[in-house]
Amino acid sequence: MTVNAVAALRAADVVFFLDKPGEARELSDLREAILAAHVPDGGPRVVRAEDPPRDRTTPAYAGAVHDWRARRADVLEGMVRDNLAPGERGAVLVWGDPALYDSIIAVFDDLRGRGTLDLDVRVLPGISSISALAARHGVTFNQVAGAVQITTGRRLAAGWPEGVDDVIVMLDAQNAFTRYVDEPDLVIHWGAYVGTADELLISGPLAQVADRIVETRTRARAAKGWIMDSYLLRRPARG
Amino acid sequence: MTVNAVAALRAADVVFFLDKPGEARELSDLREAILAAHVPDGGPRVVRAEDPPRDRTTPAYAGAVHDWRARRADVLEGMVRDNLAPGERGAVLVWGDPALYDSIIAVFDDLRGRGTLDLDVRVLPGISSISALAARHGVTFNQVAGAVQITTGRRLAAGWPEGVDDVIVMLDAQNAFTRYVDEPDLVIHWGAYVGTADELLISGPLAQVADRIVETRTRARAAKGWIMDSYLLRRPARG
Repeated sequence: MTVNAVAALRAADVVFFLDKPGEARELSDLREAILAAHVPDGGPRVVRAEDPPRDRTTPAYAGAVHDWRARRADVLEGMVRDNLAPGERGAVLVWGDPALYDSIIAVFDDLRGRGTLDLDVRVLPGISSISALAARHGVTFNQVAGAVQITTGRRLAAGWPEGVDDVIVMLDAQNAFTRYVDEPDLVIHWGAYVGTADELLISGPLAQVADRIVETRTRARAAKGWIMDSYLLRRPARG
Repeated sequence: MTVNAVAALRAADVVFFLDKPGEARELSDLREAILAAHVPDGGPRVVRAEDPPRDRTTPAYAGAVHDWRARRADVLEGMVRDNLAPGERGAVLVWGDPALYDSIIAVFDDLRGRGTLDLDVRVLPGISSISALAARHGVTFNQVAGAVQITTGRRLAAGWPEGVDDVIVMLDAQNAFTRYVDEPDLVIHWGAYVGTADELLISGPLAQVADRIVETRTRARAAKGWIMDSYLLRRPARG
């Protein structure tokens, strides 16, 4: 949490918690703990709602995402309308990384586009999951003057991105890094639940630590029921 | 500033300010203001030193960077040795984005590699400049399930990166985005001095706002003597 975000929470009239359907109870508990730690004297009213589920059965991925956003915007619209008087401030504590592979910003864009509410929306950034990962490993994203690509496990499984020696990978349910264990000199910096009490960090030459990462993430996901992890794959720059 | 970083500053025995040679006075003033705002009751001793300059005359870029790091590590080693007793904590308030195109982490790696000091180094991340940029524009880094590349102006001038529709550009002294004004449907989200009182933001179709960005950054750099800016270039994803 930043000092600015704490100030915004304290200045809010209402804090909205958008719980994902089936979300681990732990995650909503964590949001409550954050609120209690930083706004100890009560303060904003808390309003909870459940995010509508995404239709994962349809083959039309983009259409399903678009429809899901509209339904999430419906929920937000109702929450704001029912709970905020004109001039009041609402805060939404977003779990995750709104700038990366998350749709909450698009949901607000959808809502504003409707013109049904007179809303002024401001995003107060938190520490990005990738900043947290790099900091905990004490590494940078890029090598000297080089580029870095942020991508998904699905894309990495399809091939190493062109033109970069450093790749940050999110949403990798299939251990896409294992495809590259035979490439010489690759180094991986992996982390799960980074910044929490359950943090797991593994770092080293990919060929040496890949198996341990696969085992660790499988075990952790089984034990907790969910995992949030990411990694940086680094190839020595061809100077 | 995060709540964690404030706590670390308060717990420090010494805060080191590494001023860059010729750095705008404004930047070191800003560090002092940050310290005064978050540790108002005094607290850590402040120790200043000047970073050695980089040799920009040599054509051997990698060698010059390596040499510069070693000289910066010399300065740090002297600062720590002269000012920290065993068991004491030092804090270095780093201006900029240590994970992106910055060498302070490599300098500490160099220092630790020497084995001359018994140092335990922890990185506490701040809001990345790119997170701040995205938040102020209310946008995400990536489009649905897409990749994003973080790169330099020099690299973008050489060609659009393969395999991505979204490019975040830093260190662009040559307005590399102007190369792409004739590409249809490109959108740019540009920001300078983001998060400060002098923040400048311009956003829109590249063909329409490119000239205004060039003028604005030229004028701002002339007026202040320095500029820190970055931008996101977005091409509609080919679904």
